[in-house]
Amino acid sequence: MTRDELFAQIQKKRSFLCVGLDTDVLKFPQDILRKNSGKPITSDLLFKFNRDIIEATAPYTVCYKLNLAFYEIYLGVGMNAISETIHYIKENYPEIFIIADAKRGDIKNTSEKYAKAFLDDDRYSSGSSLFDAVTLSPYMGRDTVDPFLAYKDKWAVILALTSNESAKDFETLELANGRKLYEQVLETSKEWGTTDNIMYVVGATRAETLKGIREIVPDHFLLVPGVGEQGGSLQEVAEYGLNEKCGLLVNSSRGIIYADNTERFAEAAAEKAREIQQEMEGLLRSKGLI
Amino acid sequence: MTRDELFAQIQKKRSFLCVGLDTDVLKFPQDILRKNSGKPITSDLLFKFNRDIIEATAPYTVCYKLNLAFYEIYLGVGMNAISETIHYIKENYPEIFIIADAKRGDIKNTSEKYAKAFLDDDRYSSGSSLFDAVTLSPYMGRDTVDPFLAYKDKWAVILALTSNESAKDFETLELANGRKLYEQVLETSKEWGTTDNIMYVVGATRAETLKGIREIVPDHFLLVPGVGEQGGSLQEVAEYGLNEKCGLLVNSSRGIIYADNTERFAEAAAEKAREIQQEMEGLLRSKGLI
Repeated sequence: MTRDELFAQIQKKRSFLCVGLDTDVLKFPQDILRKNSGKPITSDLLFKFNRDIIEATAPYTVCYKLNLAFYEIYLGVGMNAISETIHYIKENYPEIFIIADAKRGDIKNTSEKYAKAFLDDDRYSSGSSLFDAVTLSPYMGRDTVDPFLAYKDKWAVILALTSNESAKDFETLELANGRKLYEQVLETSKEWGTTDNIMYVVGATRAETLKGIREIVPDHFLLVPGVGEQGGSLQEVAEYGLNEKCGLLVNSSRGIIYADNTERFAEAAAEKAREIQQEMEGLLRSKGLI
Repeated sequence: MTRDELFAQIQKKRSFLCVGLDTDVLKFPQDILRKNSGKPITSDLLFKFNRDIIEATAPYTVCYKLNLAFYEIYLGVGMNAISETIHYIKENYPEIFIIADAKRGDIKNTSEKYAKAFLDDDRYSSGSSLFDAVTLSPYMGRDTVDPFLAYKDKWAVILALTSNESAKDFETLELANGRKLYEQVLETSKEWGTTDNIMYVVGATRAETLKGIREIVPDHFLLVPGVGEQGGSLQEVAEYGLNEKCGLLVNSSRGIIYADNTERFAEAAAEKAREIQQEMEGLLRSKGLI
């Protein structure tokens, strides 16, 4: 998906919400747990939860992010649930952007495999791609990102400043040149690709730093986790982060998909997503973007 | 596996070789490719190659490292091949250390899932663990490592200075305190655990830096890729890297598993592994470790 296509979808849905499918059986609605108690976990169990959440939230959402850890824990079953989920989205909501939240990063010959696994359209007989984008850790440098940029209209989403407490351990260290490490990551890595194939992860819990980040990467899309459960403010993120093509995908996972743990879970997820979409619509409007 | 158990195995086999199972169908022996031409790739195809390599190299090897990218590319099929391979190793060579080369790194609630997926013994009815260790990227800080340290006798293998060209992009950047980033990663992260649950990745292509690294982490095990195909020297690695409990696992992947692409591939892998083991035996002996 191109940046223009993504922006067009944002304008049409009046939303820059990304719903994180951190699908965790332990947090499933009580009646689903009761029905499946004692049975082995199947890809169908994971997929059906995702399908219900997607059906409920798709009108308010421009992006789904699958956190791969939550699937890898179920090995082959999890992998199949990912495939089923992706195909469901592609078939029913082909306009929606799909991110593999994988945080990979390895030497070139290995990154090539990951890139092919996540991004290669040709591997799917249906002709549909698996993901539009993959999150990547920059620690090992350019090698780790280049193979992902070789795929047309696909994206590398590079970690810059993350939303977790221990981001301070290394990401915000001051370098000899006066920059912080995450600022140097932005400066260096923006040269590896373009605003049409690189995005950055910037945590909402550090909204005040978005101003400085926008000075380094004014035009790039930013994937912003940490609104909701992790305590970030959408208002502040938008104030510093919005650019002329929106430039933001704000992610909420737990706050939406586990908004309710009764049989009303999908309805509650829709309400929560709609609430965020409404706030986003106001922010887009006040910025003159719709 | 404890550090003492690992060292005991090293002394017994007179080897600190780790064989990297970067299992790539495209590089399979010609006759296997011919026999399977046009057929879908199965977990059995991947597993049987691994089994033949393991059978041939186990006498010379204290460790296998599975590079997950090479399996994830085959989705569920790849996950099943991992399980079959691990169970084969555990059943036949229970003394051998097994590393998931995954280079993961995420916020706490996600790292907990990865840690459980890779390290939790209880998840396997056989009672055998999936892996003994997982490679991790330090970029996001302590959150990303802590959940792996919660498993007894399991290991986090943290990236410090990698063997790829673009390690220079960030890993060797100078910080305001005069240290390089990878030196700070060592300094900071060694406090998160002990020499019994943290190892570091240090590329063999940077053997001259091992001296400085040993000043920061004299007692930790180092996982050293880059000997062989990537051009590192075993002699130099041993000179600077060996400590009183060996403290080194030197990895070779392509140089061993693709030493030959005829039906002699397993035999050739054994020869190559034995050659390295012999060199290692000399190095261990000259250091008085055996």
